[in-house]
Amino acid sequence: MSGGAAKDLLRVPLHELLALDLPRVRKLLASWTRSETLRTGLGRLVVGLSGGVDSALAAAIAAEAIGPENVLAVRLPYRTSSRESLDDAAEVARRLGIRTEDHDISPAVDAFLRSLGGDLPSVRSGNVQARARMIVLYDLSARDRALVLGTSNKTEILLGYSTLWGDSACALDPIGDLFKTQVWMLAEEMGLPERVVRKAPSAELWAGQTDEGEMGFSYADADRVLHLLVDLRHRREDLVALGFDAALVERIWGMVVRSQFKRRPPLLPKISPRTPGFDFRYPRDWGT
Amino acid sequence: MSGGAAKDLLRVPLHELLALDLPRVRKLLASWTRSETLRTGLGRLVVGLSGGVDSALAAAIAAEAIGPENVLAVRLPYRTSSRESLDDAAEVARRLGIRTEDHDISPAVDAFLRSLGGDLPSVRSGNVQARARMIVLYDLSARDRALVLGTSNKTEILLGYSTLWGDSACALDPIGDLFKTQVWMLAEEMGLPERVVRKAPSAELWAGQTDEGEMGFSYADADRVLHLLVDLRHRREDLVALGFDAALVERIWGMVVRSQFKRRPPLLPKISPRTPGFDFRYPRDWGT
Repeated sequence: MSGGAAKDLLRVPLHELLALDLPRVRKLLASWTRSETLRTGLGRLVVGLSGGVDSALAAAIAAEAIGPENVLAVRLPYRTSSRESLDDAAEVARRLGIRTEDHDISPAVDAFLRSLGGDLPSVRSGNVQARARMIVLYDLSARDRALVLGTSNKTEILLGYSTLWGDSACALDPIGDLFKTQVWMLAEEMGLPERVVRKAPSAELWAGQTDEGEMGFSYADADRVLHLLVDLRHRREDLVALGFDAALVERIWGMVVRSQFKRRPPLLPKISPRTPGFDFRYPRDWGT
Repeated sequence: MSGGAAKDLLRVPLHELLALDLPRVRKLLASWTRSETLRTGLGRLVVGLSGGVDSALAAAIAAEAIGPENVLAVRLPYRTSSRESLDDAAEVARRLGIRTEDHDISPAVDAFLRSLGGDLPSVRSGNVQARARMIVLYDLSARDRALVLGTSNKTEILLGYSTLWGDSACALDPIGDLFKTQVWMLAEEMGLPERVVRKAPSAELWAGQTDEGEMGFSYADADRVLHLLVDLRHRREDLVALGFDAALVERIWGMVVRSQFKRRPPLLPKISPRTPGFDFRYPRDWGT
């Protein structure tokens, strides 16, 4: 690579580095969501609306894809969830014209916590919450003959910043190949409430939690490093040579490596001629 | 294929058709379980023991792999679980010399059911139970710095006869490439209690449920048909021409086709140069 181009990687504004043809991506994601939903024979989607930008964007794409009347937004507060988040979720649903339903997960979560020893460390209790939400969403999808819509973005997926079998569990995830920066860009393009687009990202699994505070780096840094390492296939040494902070690069790459298990089906030992997940793949994988 | 060989496929005893070198497979599964557990840096396994043969066999392999002192068996009864199943699970743990812990999922499950409208159809309530068990197992694995051991066999995995993000959720599944027939064979080889090996398989998600009653065909039929279609790559028409029941073959294959989503990570749209699950694969997938 040329020296000029190389220097750009550190300094080029993130919105340029990760620029998308937003109207085209918007159309593409809506038509992909529509076709992947309809090909299952089901015509409805269920999505958990947290008040954050990721679920708001996923819901907006869903409404555009199959019509707001076929999307159900579910608010799933725990006792520590903030009033603001619930209001923001309601405002998103109102703007999109989709129905909402509320299910307080506190009684179920607290029953788990009691059985598991009471006052759990916040990460463990946060995982129980995220998985309890999955249980409600999947049951509602069975009730309504719907699919569960995912709300994880590419940054979270690559960093493994999610609860396995919790918020990462879904049938299809329209925003899973968009970095957080691109989620913000597309959310703005689609006219989502500014409060929702601008707020500090948080899973709200415990009081005061913010994604960036917990991870120890900003989404801006994560997206730049991940884009260069993953999409553009730069080596970590190259980034450090260009002036990137070595500790940051190693920390981010370490999260990608350690979370690989979250992006794969469970491991099976190979015994037979054709093993699920290895060499048995039903043709729908490449067509139909 | 020759006429003689062809006829055999319908009539050859299932134990011959699916014969394994059992002592060798036993060793292989233990050493695979050991190496896949230790390579994560963790040295413990947590397994839900239902009293059935699948979880008993998985636990036996785990105990052989990393030592019984490093395996925790968890009994996870719901209020409708039978006393016999709990006793059978205890007997398996006793024979293997592994610790057990009990967590009654009834309070949490009932809290979900209340929120979801009370008296749910049995499949929906069964799915809530299976997922509630996952929540407990995963929390205990976090507490103990352990991995969750899977207990799904190849027959279930191919038929999709499992709860997504429930009993199918695990880090590694030592019996996932063994048909149910082979699970029975290996369980006998490993000296598991005869009661456990001989009982009618049931998820016990509702009263009187048996796998074979619910599926409408026997594991013997399922295993023969699946082995021929999947492992030996026969066509469905060939099986019918050989005298297999056409409706049975179509029903089994239909279940395989419709459950493909349970064997794959969630769908993502392809937008960027490298997308998790499509073309971004961390090298550990093929080495390290």
